[in-house]
Amino acid sequence: MDKKPITILGIDPGTNIMGYGLIEVVDNKPRILQVGVIKTAGFTDHYQKLRHIFDRTNALLKELQPDELAIESPFYGKDIQAMLKLGRAQGVVMGLALSREIPVFEYAPLKVKQSITGMGRAAKEQVAFFLKNMFTLNELPKELDATDAVAVAVCHYLQMKNPVGKSGIKSWGDFVKKNPDRVK
Amino acid sequence: MDKKPITILGIDPGTNIMGYGLIEVVDNKPRILQVGVIKTAGFTDHYQKLRHIFDRTNALLKELQPDELAIESPFYGKDIQAMLKLGRAQGVVMGLALSREIPVFEYAPLKVKQSITGMGRAAKEQVAFFLKNMFTLNELPKELDATDAVAVAVCHYLQMKNPVGKSGIKSWGDFVKKNPDRVK
Repeated sequence: MDKKPITILGIDPGTNIMGYGLIEVVDNKPRILQVGVIKTAGFTDHYQKLRHIFDRTNALLKELQPDELAIESPFYGKDIQAMLKLGRAQGVVMGLALSREIPVFEYAPLKVKQSITGMGRAAKEQVAFFLKNMFTLNELPKELDATDAVAVAVCHYLQMKNPVGKSGIKSWGDFVKKNPDRVK
Repeated sequence: MDKKPITILGIDPGTNIMGYGLIEVVDNKPRILQVGVIKTAGFTDHYQKLRHIFDRTNALLKELQPDELAIESPFYGKDIQAMLKLGRAQGVVMGLALSREIPVFEYAPLKVKQSITGMGRAAKEQVAFFLKNMFTLNELPKELDATDAVAVAVCHYLQMKNPVGKSGIKSWGDFVKKNPDRVK
């Protein structure tokens, strides 16, 4: 029996550029509905950036009405002031989603790469390559931030589909290796 | 000529308890209009906390309609994960205020204590003591978090009134010392 289609909005947060990608999963097949970036590099003021992120995200959630939101969590290696600013940008997005009853899921960058390519240390280009195969698209978005956003949405989809320990296939990379005939 | 009255909402952010205090300044005299706390300690889930902060702050801003928002910025000495979570809580509050065209001002804890008591290393009780004199109230809010929120609002008021370098009086503590007869 077919599952009810769900939409997942992936977010790759940043204080200068925030990528987003909306995927729809119908009958266990994900497809990309919309990708884009919210740019705040033009604003020098931190508060103006936050406000822009608030207003754009609010409009996006209203327009796209995703069922779930997947967001990339940051490395903890950055400096503490950068972490505070990134936290604020994330807080804006998370608060807006949660207030609309959209569940929020976080994935570490290593987890995203691992679930898609099978390698936690994969380069961004490798992630894009796997996504390209997965979606059988000729081209993925030009902005890597938007690709990263699609990646975190796909990571969430794979996570829901194959919760850890319930599947012999650990990643899309693993799936490709085991099912070469099923990948175009 | 009397200045137009303005209201300042002070916020002492935290991930378990968030204090708020609304002051009104009429004719250069501040008075407390409302104080309270938003408690999130009851929620174990980080996202539930964020959502509660979002919904409560949204309702507060709608109800109180402050002209300006003053928020205490955190020490950078805390661990990086705590900083991220605090950043998220702050981002929720800041985003909501900014989207309502309410200007946001940040003050470090040392700056708040310095501007009120004249001592950057003052204890919370000393800050409360000075505020009590300032507002000639018999009692300040029981919760220290709410007192801290009033303190950051007062700090912003003093900052606007006497921008650094334009006044011989550096703090309320300094004012009290120089004008003992003017303080009840």
